[in-house]
Amino acid sequence: MAEVVGFSSMDELVEATVPKPIKRGPMSLPGKFHEGLTESQMIDHMKYLAAKNKIAKSYIGMGYYNTIVPPVILRNIMENPGWYTQYTPYQAEIAQGRLESLLNYQTMIAELTGLPMSNASLLDEGTAAAEAMGMCLNIGSRKRPKFLIASNCHPQTIDVCVTRADGLGMTASIVDPDKFEFSKDVCGVLVQYPATDGSITDYASLISSAHANGVKVVVATDLLALTCLKPPGEIGADMAVGSAQRFGVPLGYGGPHAAFLATSQEYKRMMPGRIIGVSVDSNGKPALRMALQTREQHIRRDKATSNICTAQALLANMSAMYAVYHGPEGLKAIADRVHGLATVFSEGVKKLGYQVGSDPFFDTVKVSASNASSLAETAAKEGINLRVLDANTVTVAFDETITLEDVDNLFKVFAKGKRVNFTAESLAPSAGSSLPKEMVRESAYLTHPIFNSYHSEHELLRYLHRIQAKDLSLVHSMIPLGSCTMKLNATVEMMPVTFPEFANIHPFAPLDQTGGYQEMFKNLGDFLCEITGFDSVSLQPNAGAAGEYTGLMVIRAYQKAKGEGHRNVCIIPVSAHGTNPASAAMCGMKIVSIGTDANGNVDIAELKQAAEANKDNLSALMVTYPSTHGVYEDGIDDICDIIHKNGGQVYMDGANMNAQVGLTSPGFIGADVCHLNLHKTFCIPHGGGGPGMGPIGVKKHLTPFLPSHPVVSTGGIPPSSEKAQPLGTISAAPWGSALILPISYTYIAMMGSEGLTSASKLAILNANYMAKRLENHYRILFRGKNGTCAHEFIVDLRAFKATANIEPEDVAKRLIDYGFHAPTMSWPVHGTLMIEPTESESKAELDRFCDAMISIREEIRAIENGTCNAADNVLKGAPHSASMVLSDKWNKPYSRKLAAYPATWVESSKFWPSTGRVDNVYGDRNLVCTLINGDATPAEERVATA
Amino acid sequence: MAEVVGFSSMDELVEATVPKPIKRGPMSLPGKFHEGLTESQMIDHMKYLAAKNKIAKSYIGMGYYNTIVPPVILRNIMENPGWYTQYTPYQAEIAQGRLESLLNYQTMIAELTGLPMSNASLLDEGTAAAEAMGMCLNIGSRKRPKFLIASNCHPQTIDVCVTRADGLGMTASIVDPDKFEFSKDVCGVLVQYPATDGSITDYASLISSAHANGVKVVVATDLLALTCLKPPGEIGADMAVGSAQRFGVPLGYGGPHAAFLATSQEYKRMMPGRIIGVSVDSNGKPALRMALQTREQHIRRDKATSNICTAQALLANMSAMYAVYHGPEGLKAIADRVHGLATVFSEGVKKLGYQVGSDPFFDTVKVSASNASSLAETAAKEGINLRVLDANTVTVAFDETITLEDVDNLFKVFAKGKRVNFTAESLAPSAGSSLPKEMVRESAYLTHPIFNSYHSEHELLRYLHRIQAKDLSLVHSMIPLGSCTMKLNATVEMMPVTFPEFANIHPFAPLDQTGGYQEMFKNLGDFLCEITGFDSVSLQPNAGAAGEYTGLMVIRAYQKAKGEGHRNVCIIPVSAHGTNPASAAMCGMKIVSIGTDANGNVDIAELKQAAEANKDNLSALMVTYPSTHGVYEDGIDDICDIIHKNGGQVYMDGANMNAQVGLTSPGFIGADVCHLNLHKTFCIPHGGGGPGMGPIGVKKHLTPFLPSHPVVSTGGIPPSSEKAQPLGTISAAPWGSALILPISYTYIAMMGSEGLTSASKLAILNANYMAKRLENHYRILFRGKNGTCAHEFIVDLRAFKATANIEPEDVAKRLIDYGFHAPTMSWPVHGTLMIEPTESESKAELDRFCDAMISIREEIRAIENGTCNAADNVLKGAPHSASMVLSDKWNKPYSRKLAAYPATWVESSKFWPSTGRVDNVYGDRNLVCTLINGDATPAEERVATA
Ligand SMILES: Cc1ncc(COP(=O)(O)O)c(C=O)c1O
Ligand SMILES: Cc1ncc(COP(=O)(O)O)c(C=O)c1O
Ligand SMILES: O=C([O-])O
Repeated sequence: MAEVVGFSSMDELVEATVPKPIKRGPMSLPGKFHEGLTESQMIDHMKYLAAKNKIAKSYIGMGYYNTIVPPVILRNIMENPGWYTQYTPYQAEIAQGRLESLLNYQTMIAELTGLPMSNASLLDEGTAAAEAMGMCLNIGSRKRPKFLIASNCHPQTIDVCVTRADGLGMTASIVDPDKFEFSKDVCGVLVQYPATDGSITDYASLISSAHANGVKVVVATDLLALTCLKPPGEIGADMAVGSAQRFGVPLGYGGPHAAFLATSQEYKRMMPGRIIGVSVDSNGKPALRMALQTREQHIRRDKATSNICTAQALLANMSAMYAVYHGPEGLKAIADRVHGLATVFSEGVKKLGYQVGSDPFFDTVKVSASNASSLAETAAKEGINLRVLDANTVTVAFDETITLEDVDNLFKVFAKGKRVNFTAESLAPSAGSSLPKEMVRESAYLTHPIFNSYHSEHELLRYLHRIQAKDLSLVHSMIPLGSCTMKLNATVEMMPVTFPEFANIHPFAPLDQTGGYQEMFKNLGDFLCEITGFDSVSLQPNAGAAGEYTGLMVIRAYQKAKGEGHRNVCIIPVSAHGTNPASAAMCGMKIVSIGTDANGNVDIAELKQAAEANKDNLSALMVTYPSTHGVYEDGIDDICDIIHKNGGQVYMDGANMNAQVGLTSPGFIGADVCHLNLHKTFCIPHGGGGPGMGPIGVKKHLTPFLPSHPVVSTGGIPPSSEKAQPLGTISAAPWGSALILPISYTYIAMMGSEGLTSASKLAILNANYMAKRLENHYRILFRGKNGTCAHEFIVDLRAFKATANIEPEDVAKRLIDYGFHAPTMSWPVHGTLMIEPTESESKAELDRFCDAMISIREEIRAIENGTCNAADNVLKGAPHSASMVLSDKWNKPYSRKLAAYPATWVESSKFWPSTGRVDNVYGDRNLVCTLINGDATPAEERVATA
Repeated sequence: MAEVVGFSSMDELVEATVPKPIKRGPMSLPGKFHEGLTESQMIDHMKYLAAKNKIAKSYIGMGYYNTIVPPVILRNIMENPGWYTQYTPYQAEIAQGRLESLLNYQTMIAELTGLPMSNASLLDEGTAAAEAMGMCLNIGSRKRPKFLIASNCHPQTIDVCVTRADGLGMTASIVDPDKFEFSKDVCGVLVQYPATDGSITDYASLISSAHANGVKVVVATDLLALTCLKPPGEIGADMAVGSAQRFGVPLGYGGPHAAFLATSQEYKRMMPGRIIGVSVDSNGKPALRMALQTREQHIRRDKATSNICTAQALLANMSAMYAVYHGPEGLKAIADRVHGLATVFSEGVKKLGYQVGSDPFFDTVKVSASNASSLAETAAKEGINLRVLDANTVTVAFDETITLEDVDNLFKVFAKGKRVNFTAESLAPSAGSSLPKEMVRESAYLTHPIFNSYHSEHELLRYLHRIQAKDLSLVHSMIPLGSCTMKLNATVEMMPVTFPEFANIHPFAPLDQTGGYQEMFKNLGDFLCEITGFDSVSLQPNAGAAGEYTGLMVIRAYQKAKGEGHRNVCIIPVSAHGTNPASAAMCGMKIVSIGTDANGNVDIAELKQAAEANKDNLSALMVTYPSTHGVYEDGIDDICDIIHKNGGQVYMDGANMNAQVGLTSPGFIGADVCHLNLHKTFCIPHGGGGPGMGPIGVKKHLTPFLPSHPVVSTGGIPPSSEKAQPLGTISAAPWGSALILPISYTYIAMMGSEGLTSASKLAILNANYMAKRLENHYRILFRGKNGTCAHEFIVDLRAFKATANIEPEDVAKRLIDYGFHAPTMSWPVHGTLMIEPTESESKAELDRFCDAMISIREEIRAIENGTCNAADNVLKGAPHSASMVLSDKWNKPYSRKLAAYPATWVESSKFWPSTGRVDNVYGDRNLVCTLINGDATPAEERVATA
């Protein structure tokens, strides 16, 4: 392959491609990891770590509950590459399955919260609350900079919001909700329902007074409780946020889980994150796709409603399927049982002489105990985790996994050695609901047939596979998305994720129960430091964009600590990913854009000018390396120098680390901080739009400022040698989505130092090989000095608009007919496709993709030379669903066979798009973002009458 | 639903359906299992059992080796319902994926053994050897009744053959292969290569002399060794047998594993088991299907080449994919490494002063040790299992999981506390191959592109999913196969199968390492006794047919013990499954057929006459209950009486236990022995043609005769109170396919006594509901007294031949267009379909299937009334593949849409058959049963030139 590209070997190609000055010395992972473990050794090592985690019965609650993952969902979604390797559903025609599932999720959230608009997941409950806070600020036109947070919210929610408020330039005050004052500068308030101590308050009148004063109300809430309690929408809330974790997603020591945010129709255009909506396809049939994308960072950049990009699609799907499986009655039965257990426990401890909280509760009982900590320690010895609320109070939170026998064990602990002369079973019959009538939910929910048809395992299994069959994923073909690094997620890397000793750990479990996790964090920290050339990492951010925000906040904290808190200018090249300006905006930064030169490189002269002009206020540069154009810029060390000389810090976007690992490193190049997308470079599968992890690495001077956590204190890994001055809290869980860290950990540990370096080289070789094969057919934009590209390259399609009336979308949709997912479209350059093959694809697969592209080029040529109709041709008609090509009426100027079978390989194995081309505009004009109740084909009627 | 059938409740329907005299009292499973466990409790219980199994490093060998199951195969085949819930590929058009995989398997076996014809798996190595012995008998026209078995074969192989020989009326003698005498009465010999003690002998001259005397030679062999050793075919063997287990299938305490049997073209029509072959479809394109079915029991009955029906398809697929993944070079590298480790070990123990065997070896080293047992015991304490060959000899067998460190641990054990002054690593460089040149393989193998393209995880993953997409399974729709009971295999039941503590246990591990298995066997024995009304069960038979053979052999042993060894008549109704007469034939029985009356019941008068006529020699009756016609025969107790009165024993075929469990039982009815198909009634998935388990239950008087095992002695569970007089050995492993027993075990334990009973009732209700819906459209054959059927029923299609030229096959193939697998076709009554819905299907699914059948009835009516062409219509054209309906030339008298989308549900989710109707006759006339080397589309050319 190297020879095709014009080099005698892969190493020679790499030599010619990576600029000399930035070439690092050989990488050296610690100890046995340097050589790399075999798959069998790896599994043994993960079992060794697993054995160091102790699974206790958790009654901690605080937004995290044990749950029973229905095995049919565990095996057929969570452990199934057909689901977990999907990409975000940008190509709607080959994503109708997960789009339907996410629409189910939105419907579930909307109906349980009583608020009609839900997005398709956020990163966690804490950030969902922070996003809602940001919405309140925007609804108040940024003129009301105060936000009140009820003091009985979860502590991690509070801290995430306070940190976020700081970045946004607003103040968040923690106040007893009874003492809220709705002054003119207050844009919104956050209350929690049920509260962190389990108590339930009727917020109807609080909401009325808030509204009377122009203040918006966000309610953090619990989906299971909402099957019993009047939903936030019915008591007037403007927004509801929370976590869907307890709907069938493992605790995972904190994540990943899907969080939700629902609101009224009024504020839908201000919502953060992805929203799935109903539209129509080219045949006028209903079809789903992502709606209202103009709110998002990839279009609106710093004016976006949020920086969120990768979210928690896979987990949202799991939770939605949990609801589909149990249905409304099943969920209610689970809720009643949980509430019943809490009630039985409450009655029992009262008998034992304890005082319990007087407020109504759903699943969490507050118990006064003279020495709460010692009680909790005794309990822990019995494998029972209680929450110490304060010196004299514990709370005990129940979930669907608890049995009457477990409650008896609780009684034993609370009896402190005394005999218990009753049993949970004996108390059960007389324990009635403690919910006040006026707060009991009366409205129906989940009435759509989808939530009422698949309650047996066979039916759910078939539903899962039916919709999976509509979705193209890595099990079908390469997904060569530039910048997204859709690479192999080896099965062995996925296996520890569902080891119970990793999956069933509460994020706030005592540290002595999480030795395996801690050892893995430490090792992973060491790995990532070695890989990035940094001194410490934080594992808290849950996605790349969250990493960007964290990194900038670290810089900000550092500059503040130095007395340079006024520095607020962030220089960002126009070619940067939309999340960069969106994240900078979240840190209150002023963005100065700079352009690129003809070769796609940052215009260094312009950069220098901008840096010098903003010298006094320069906070940071955000730069991607290799550039988003797929080129190793020669001047990157100069660029870092310029920024440093002008008092700024260099933030490196690590999305392109797949071209750096082992060859160079952000630290070596001169960056001060960078995030890593573990879901790109480090093998966490994309899950159809998340989960991800975006840890950041920093240089020594920044280590004291890494985020901590209010419940479990943490900081850099390894810890800073200086006194910690954490910037605050970024995520609800101390180590973000800890459960998926084993994927990246095992990837690195098995590859070893040399393996990782070879992977980067191979990624470069693959990209250059494809570029070479395609250059005789397409114009390839931007190459480096020696005519090579980095790990990705851009194919220019702009000319075809004039010559053949062909747009990138036509090529993208035509690729579907060939069985491929399109490369990244029109980013970073409009009118182009950006191809990233990664190291994990075979030459055969690269060739197959090139063959498809070349064949499409010939199809375009046929239009150019007049052989084919410019208005009606295989590209404009693409993609062609089965129902289109077997329609009895066929009035296309080309054949059915050419439409559906344009290449030999599709004849033996065809992936059928399930719709014709989806109309984006129609859907945004006729917004429908939930299933329509009682109608199995939601949009059909709307469409008919539209 | 009951009301539709004309009853007020399910119980009333059951009351009216099951004859009063046979109704049993309520079932009562022992202890906590009576109530039934929840899924969570079940998993906890299985973990408790798992913890009682101890995984040791096994060096026992004897045909069972540790292996690394490639995780991509583990997750995407073994744990994937898309693969494991497939049915045997009788409907070839919706089974091309697994047919291709099985063709790969046959190719792998053929090329590694050097014998061109392989079948698609047998039950285990022991029975494969026994089948080969049977072939030798038949090749010798049953006129040479002696068979010689080399004394250095595995002991379990020897015992299985000796037992089988006894049944077949031949004698098998165990002889040192050096002393073989090829007399005129010898039909064949069995040698093992490498032998059980690891030694390798060149059998070329032995084979020549055998052939010179008209004696056939069977070689039991090892696939991994054959990558290095001259294959049996090249040294002249007539047949090769063995196990494919070490190609990526877990030990599983003995099974399930795929065994193989390969032979020359000459004997192909005498082979047992399923054979996949290449044929063409209705478009003249190559297509696969099962070949030479006329050899098999379902057609040839007692004249069949074997009784085998369910085999080991899933495991054959796993092994084939292991070879696809590693490819010829990868396999050779594994073999070289294993051989290298054995050599290093051999050198090392010599240095420690031991004497090792002087013969060449591949992976097993024979070591003289004065007190072999005590050495083995010491080793076991270190977690190392050795094989004690005799008082002064151990053998040490290596496999791909062993490392140099493991070899060092062996040295430590053999050094008995003395210091070892070398390491395995230090010996490795000088340890050369010990194989004599003339025995080294020179021929190539696995040269086809399929074995040389998918060596990366991505490529294999995609290959697996690509072919899976061609196969209809329970993930798509119900598979209503009468008599086959394709029911739900709940995920939670599947999970323990891949717990390492169940998967990684050698079948001959010391009993104190298998406490979990033993406890499960005991409980399962108790469960099955309670369910069947018997006193003891044997878990040894690996499929239903093997159970039949075992049951009849038990009867035979009992009668012999009573001095009635002359009893050899077996009465079998004509409606019996083909395995019944085939099994009886294997026990040397004379079959007397009896007919059925107009209601499908056994003709009692005829039975009585036959029994009385054969009074003196009557051995047994084989009877299925409810009958294969789906009816609870009223006279079953009379039938049992008649047989008993005439000195016979009643063998009940338990295939229809799904209509008995909890309502009646074989023991209660009066049977003496019966087999259970755990892969029907008790939820083991069908795996595309196996694995299965066919344990038998017996009355007290038969318990002493249950099979034992030469290596690990076993017998009935619970054991007989009398002295054991075991009939011999049935399977290679003491408890058959132990690894899949957790499936049935958890099913029973979770259902509890009442749950199991309800399942039977629901199965009856579902069948009656469907029969009711269909009776206005089709003639339903045979119902019981109250107009009800049992758990299955027969739809009569015979009339349509005359009215519309329509055959059952046309209906079966048309069902594919509707997304369904056909019911059982033309059995037990020619010209019919037999439908069994099972309890696990929802009403919605039953209705969908009925809707399809009714719609097809209307399509037939259109032919009957002349609206449609009798020669060219949707039924004759079925199934319609995608490439057919989108062909540019469409000259059918019906529309493309009608062809492919005959029902609303296929419009939203279509399962496409990957070929047109497959031509069976063509393939048998042009037999090709392997991939054609160097040609990716094997049959295309043959077809073109045919
Ligand atoms: C260059 C670049 N930066 C940042 C991101 C944001 O990462 P995430 O989606 O994990 O938030 C992306 C995602 O595609 C990216 O390509
Ligand atoms: C009535 C009957 N008996 C026996 C068998 C043989 O069982 P197995 O395929 O497990 O050998 C079958 C299998 O279909 C059957 O239906
Ligand atoms: O797993 C499936 O690809 O259906």
